[in-house]
Amino acid sequence: VIYSPLLTDQYQLVMAYNYWKLGMAQREAVFHLSFRQLPEKCDYLVSAGLESVIEFLANFQFSSSDLSYLKKLQTHHAKLFSADFLDYLEQLTFTCDLHAIPEGVLSFAKEPILRIQGSILQCQLLETPLLNFIHFATLIATKASVLYSAAQSDPIIEFGLRRAHGPDGGLTASRSAFIGGCSGTSNALAGKLFDIPIQGTQAHSWIMAFPTELEAFRSVAQVMGNATILLVDTYKTVDGIKHAIEIGHSLQKEGHELAGIRLDSGDLLALSKEARRMLDEANLPHTKIIASGDLDEDIIRYLKSQHAPIDSWGVGTRLVTSYTQPALNAIYKLAAIKNSEGNWDYKMKISDDPQKLTLPGIQQIRRYSNQRDIIYNIRSDETLPSGGSDLLQPIFCNGKLVYQTPTLHQMRETCIAQVQAFSEHAPKPYPVELGTQLRAIIAHTTQSHEH
Amino acid sequence: VIYSPLLTDQYQLVMAYNYWKLGMAQREAVFHLSFRQLPEKCDYLVSAGLESVIEFLANFQFSSSDLSYLKKLQTHHAKLFSADFLDYLEQLTFTCDLHAIPEGVLSFAKEPILRIQGSILQCQLLETPLLNFIHFATLIATKASVLYSAAQSDPIIEFGLRRAHGPDGGLTASRSAFIGGCSGTSNALAGKLFDIPIQGTQAHSWIMAFPTELEAFRSVAQVMGNATILLVDTYKTVDGIKHAIEIGHSLQKEGHELAGIRLDSGDLLALSKEARRMLDEANLPHTKIIASGDLDEDIIRYLKSQHAPIDSWGVGTRLVTSYTQPALNAIYKLAAIKNSEGNWDYKMKISDDPQKLTLPGIQQIRRYSNQRDIIYNIRSDETLPSGGSDLLQPIFCNGKLVYQTPTLHQMRETCIAQVQAFSEHAPKPYPVELGTQLRAIIAHTTQSHEH
Repeated sequence: VIYSPLLTDQYQLVMAYNYWKLGMAQREAVFHLSFRQLPEKCDYLVSAGLESVIEFLANFQFSSSDLSYLKKLQTHHAKLFSADFLDYLEQLTFTCDLHAIPEGVLSFAKEPILRIQGSILQCQLLETPLLNFIHFATLIATKASVLYSAAQSDPIIEFGLRRAHGPDGGLTASRSAFIGGCSGTSNALAGKLFDIPIQGTQAHSWIMAFPTELEAFRSVAQVMGNATILLVDTYKTVDGIKHAIEIGHSLQKEGHELAGIRLDSGDLLALSKEARRMLDEANLPHTKIIASGDLDEDIIRYLKSQHAPIDSWGVGTRLVTSYTQPALNAIYKLAAIKNSEGNWDYKMKISDDPQKLTLPGIQQIRRYSNQRDIIYNIRSDETLPSGGSDLLQPIFCNGKLVYQTPTLHQMRETCIAQVQAFSEHAPKPYPVELGTQLRAIIAHTTQSHEH
Repeated sequence: VIYSPLLTDQYQLVMAYNYWKLGMAQREAVFHLSFRQLPEKCDYLVSAGLESVIEFLANFQFSSSDLSYLKKLQTHHAKLFSADFLDYLEQLTFTCDLHAIPEGVLSFAKEPILRIQGSILQCQLLETPLLNFIHFATLIATKASVLYSAAQSDPIIEFGLRRAHGPDGGLTASRSAFIGGCSGTSNALAGKLFDIPIQGTQAHSWIMAFPTELEAFRSVAQVMGNATILLVDTYKTVDGIKHAIEIGHSLQKEGHELAGIRLDSGDLLALSKEARRMLDEANLPHTKIIASGDLDEDIIRYLKSQHAPIDSWGVGTRLVTSYTQPALNAIYKLAAIKNSEGNWDYKMKISDDPQKLTLPGIQQIRRYSNQRDIIYNIRSDETLPSGGSDLLQPIFCNGKLVYQTPTLHQMRETCIAQVQAFSEHAPKPYPVELGTQLRAIIAHTTQSHEH
């Protein structure tokens, strides 16, 4: 279902039809996917979502039920699409070139995260799905990275499936959050599909299903032994901690240790300090304290600044929905098209609002070890400073996959290493410059448009 | 993939295991799914998401790859789950009773949207997926309803796929938005899967792919005839309108009409008035004006109050992400459990925060024609006022589907009719009362807890 080429806006199909009718279907074009601005509280983006893009493009094929659906569509009492166009779609496969920034690598506003080159018809159809895949995954990977920094590298477990935007929204959130620095997820299906460590504790309903909290604690300890984690805030938290200590001592007698307690409400600073003191005094120094309950980066940063003795953090809704900013300004814009003479015409969206200007050319990004990036046009005779390396990697060449996807664990390591280097060494805001030749193209395009 | 029972939190699996180990797997329990509060800017919720729940439950079965995954899981160097538990899961199917408020029907804070009764092990495993399905769909259906009211029943087209939270997030958003009152979607796959009308216009890239705007307009009109809709804001909007009028006149000569123009940026009030005046003066009174561009309910309400001559509204990001409030406080709570003597123990979460109190009992809602609802315990000898009807409908009985799902169009009609009746006749805030016997249970449960 998800990999149908119908996963696009109706107008992409209509424009594809129009290009085809006008004999322009094979006209070569270049589009870039980028973000207009950085998120509100972050100096960078964590690129993510490429794996979905790859799966989608590798399986790009209209099914017979897709075509039957398109055949039925009408507009103003006439068929929307002609039969020969549907025959064309039936044969269509992805044949473009795709370059992309690998997942987990940092990027910045206006930088192309994807560059696609080939048939304008294909590029047009792909606008919506490519934006969908990259935007959401990058949004969540970036949010997770902000949380990871706030928690000063403490383990963060993503707990958000229940309030994520659908099952697949939850899965992509788990995967992206892991790339951005989370240590695990509560989502068991994400664990299976993406090899992410899964973790969890205990729900209030468990406690409520037993006559008393102590009985509920004892029952779980009986089954889980060393892996027992007790949720202590169902009734009165301090009583809950006392009951947990009682269980901790019983476990000790059997040669076990109480793995942890979870605080899910109340004044987490005061409660975590009290819990740590009580556990330590009760000779349970190895019992961890896990905090959860509508946590976000601001709360975690505050609790860290006050030295709350919290060992790991469960973050759900605020992470998987990117609650404070549930969408970013991701765009996908035409930047070059071959004219009827076979020469490249560079294209940019001109706007009174400088934020809405888009960059022309066939772009690549050169990064100089965390000091600056230069976006340049690969077809210009650009003399770039020495050193540095290009960020956009070849993914598909004439529709053929040429990229070996790293493991999710490698992406996460890349991200964490880059964030650390960025935090320590990079100037902020990070300088993203334009190559001399690209600037010349912009000046020329703007000027020619004003005439 | 999506219908695996692994689509749940790890702790649900662990608790299921514990219940099973303790011989409590078949203990009968009752859970309700409800929303703690209403959304910030709406007096009601539009219930949605039941169809996903039904599909999930009807297909509830651990696959062999799910079981292999669970078998591998370790904790503290031991297997997390015993082999005989995995054998149990292999045989597990859904055997509970489910009652639900049908999709498109209005509901209110604290009212159970779902009630599930049966094996506590099954109820526990289902907490996360049921919340995931109902929360997101209800969130978006409600948001769409707010937009529909703001637009005073003008057609709203959902344009959000590109910035929705994943492909499936986009599909569920399209479906839910339609239930809530949208007239169509740009999402072609949603059109195919859910029989929602799909609509669209033209992208900036189309305009940019041609040497001039006029040429771009002429090309599309050549193919689309009567169905031509022109995006007029790529360069200078007023020039764009002039060009559109030129095309409108050419189309008239061929016996066609220009279907519409789209305004996607700028001062939509001034531009729509200017566009309407220009179109009318040019003898193009039937050419519609479509507005889009980061629209939300506040902007639409303002434009309607100023009599902006806009015929239909394209709303994307702000709708499909529920931008101003991307998650609500949906909860799923134990409300009753049979004790070892086979009698019902009623359960409620006690909290210092009255918002966090949950209701005990086996609940049903009786609605009195838009004047009030009464939540009551079906096992009490409750004498309810006459009139009114129960909202929770039987969906599964002992795991067997007993419900005939209405069509999506019927759900949308239900919603629109209910919203209209609610707006005209219901007292606000809408009174949701508790039955006398339910209040007695609460008093008793609270009291017994304090002792």
